[in-house]
Amino acid sequence: MPDTNRQLLLKSRPTGLVSRDNFDAVASPLPELRDGQALARIRFLSVDPTMRIWMSDREGYLPPVALGEVMRALGIAEVISSKHPEFKTGDLVFGMTGFQEYVLLGAGEKVPFRKLPAIPGVPLTAFLGVLGITGITAYFGITDIARPQPGETLVVSAAAGATGSIAGQIGKILGCRVVGIAGGEEKCAWLTDELHFDAAINYKQSGWKEKLAAACPQGIDINYENVGGDIMNTVLSRMNLHGRVVLCGLISGYNQEDPALASFATVLIKRLRVQGFIVLDYAPRYGEAVAQLGQWLAAGKLKDRHTVVEGLDRAPDALAMLFTGQNIGKLIVRL
Amino acid sequence: MPDTNRQLLLKSRPTGLVSRDNFDAVASPLPELRDGQALARIRFLSVDPTMRIWMSDREGYLPPVALGEVMRALGIAEVISSKHPEFKTGDLVFGMTGFQEYVLLGAGEKVPFRKLPAIPGVPLTAFLGVLGITGITAYFGITDIARPQPGETLVVSAAAGATGSIAGQIGKILGCRVVGIAGGEEKCAWLTDELHFDAAINYKQSGWKEKLAAACPQGIDINYENVGGDIMNTVLSRMNLHGRVVLCGLISGYNQEDPALASFATVLIKRLRVQGFIVLDYAPRYGEAVAQLGQWLAAGKLKDRHTVVEGLDRAPDALAMLFTGQNIGKLIVRL
Repeated sequence: MPDTNRQLLLKSRPTGLVSRDNFDAVASPLPELRDGQALARIRFLSVDPTMRIWMSDREGYLPPVALGEVMRALGIAEVISSKHPEFKTGDLVFGMTGFQEYVLLGAGEKVPFRKLPAIPGVPLTAFLGVLGITGITAYFGITDIARPQPGETLVVSAAAGATGSIAGQIGKILGCRVVGIAGGEEKCAWLTDELHFDAAINYKQSGWKEKLAAACPQGIDINYENVGGDIMNTVLSRMNLHGRVVLCGLISGYNQEDPALASFATVLIKRLRVQGFIVLDYAPRYGEAVAQLGQWLAAGKLKDRHTVVEGLDRAPDALAMLFTGQNIGKLIVRL
Repeated sequence: MPDTNRQLLLKSRPTGLVSRDNFDAVASPLPELRDGQALARIRFLSVDPTMRIWMSDREGYLPPVALGEVMRALGIAEVISSKHPEFKTGDLVFGMTGFQEYVLLGAGEKVPFRKLPAIPGVPLTAFLGVLGITGITAYFGITDIARPQPGETLVVSAAAGATGSIAGQIGKILGCRVVGIAGGEEKCAWLTDELHFDAAINYKQSGWKEKLAAACPQGIDINYENVGGDIMNTVLSRMNLHGRVVLCGLISGYNQEDPALASFATVLIKRLRVQGFIVLDYAPRYGEAVAQLGQWLAAGKLKDRHTVVEGLDRAPDALAMLFTGQNIGKLIVRL
């Protein structure tokens, strides 16, 4: 039995890119196992963009890692000693292991560790990738949020990353035209040659925006967004009416405060649904609205107010009034 | 019969606020009526924020008004002469009248003019307000996009405007707690005293953000957004998990190019649905995903790739690698 545990504690919050200086490496004594606990040696640690958010003190979907705490991370560990009713020596488990060599199971963790099945031909690391949180993320992002129809065009950013590469492949399985955006020729070659994406765009090459347009001749129906910023804006600008954006990550903004991304970060963290809306789409149902509005109006439940400007010549002034807040209720020009 | 028609033509595109200088006032001869046409005298013109978009050469949901064209506007007109089978003298009609004194019906307009019913007790101008496009917009925005549940908190920006004032009232009818944001005490008093909003926040007063928070003790479930910018960001920051944003207008950005608003403008114009997504919400269904992913993996339809970094001490470097694009596929630390 080992008696010390090497751990990386969060020492300081990064201001830009994460560096070693943000961590303290310490050797902590391993406690005696109590009843109901097991000790596991960590075999693999998952490294995910969201960890950059956990390191900051920004509001997130999980509380920040406190300074002095072991850095939070998902991982796979092997049980080496157990007084836990569910785990025995040799079991492989998945959970929040943290950046350390050993982890105690049954020590009050919020989400219990989960035993991993041994599946012939499936390497253990698959449970951090395609069969792990990233694969599950891609699965629900595509099947439940995007809900693609065969023939639709799906664009995935950070397409050579863990989640993007699975999201794009699921899009292909479901019959989409799939275009990936990634940084570098090797990544792009992998996407098209091995994963059979219909096209891959290297955003580090000049002219990539035109290439993206050419790769999406029918426009873009779905954006699986991992990046934000200029990449997202470029994709959005080519989207078709009534397209869907699965806002899964905004990695371009994790290392600096980007005010242009602040709202989208809120949309992501709070899982908001933002729906662009122009009433023209409802033209066939205008009658239904007018009937209900008229009924509410007649019943005194709705009140209507107008600000009236007199004369055609003052119509331009009226238009300006809208933006200087001089009207209350509906602004009308009477001729 | 009149023989000249005073018209306001778009002379130049505004750079900031609309001004009279953007228009040319001309007197054009009125043509003889042909068979199938009617002449109507314009009685009321609608003035709407979206007209500012039509005046720019930005991509929109309708083409820009061309320079030299009569300024596009909705309005109500009275038929004064007719060779049209559907309209007779005295009929009141609604449609794209434009900024002019007279309009020709049956002259190739894309959306036909619509005859207005005479409803006792309902003033004609209601067909530009509560029973017009703005009322219809509020109706579908609330009932079809937001779909409020009784007891939910709805925040409306530009709440004393034509659409916002109706949207908030519909929210009240449907049982919401409704909080309006408007600029000025008179507007706020109207919202609470006459329209019975639960609270109204004057964003021109210091401390308005704290007042908004206090007025929404249960957080915000629905944002009916007409403004964008700082007002939208403030509302978003107080929204509850899984809230809905009806993106109906971004009036704060219509008079200047605001890069932070560009993406939201695209979401609005293209009626996109942007959904923030964090896989934790799907925890009860993880098994379903893993089963399907495992099946695709076994069938060779999904490929998994890892970039492996060796040793706990390199875990911080691995985290930085994610943001400098050095990994392909899933990034893992092996201990």
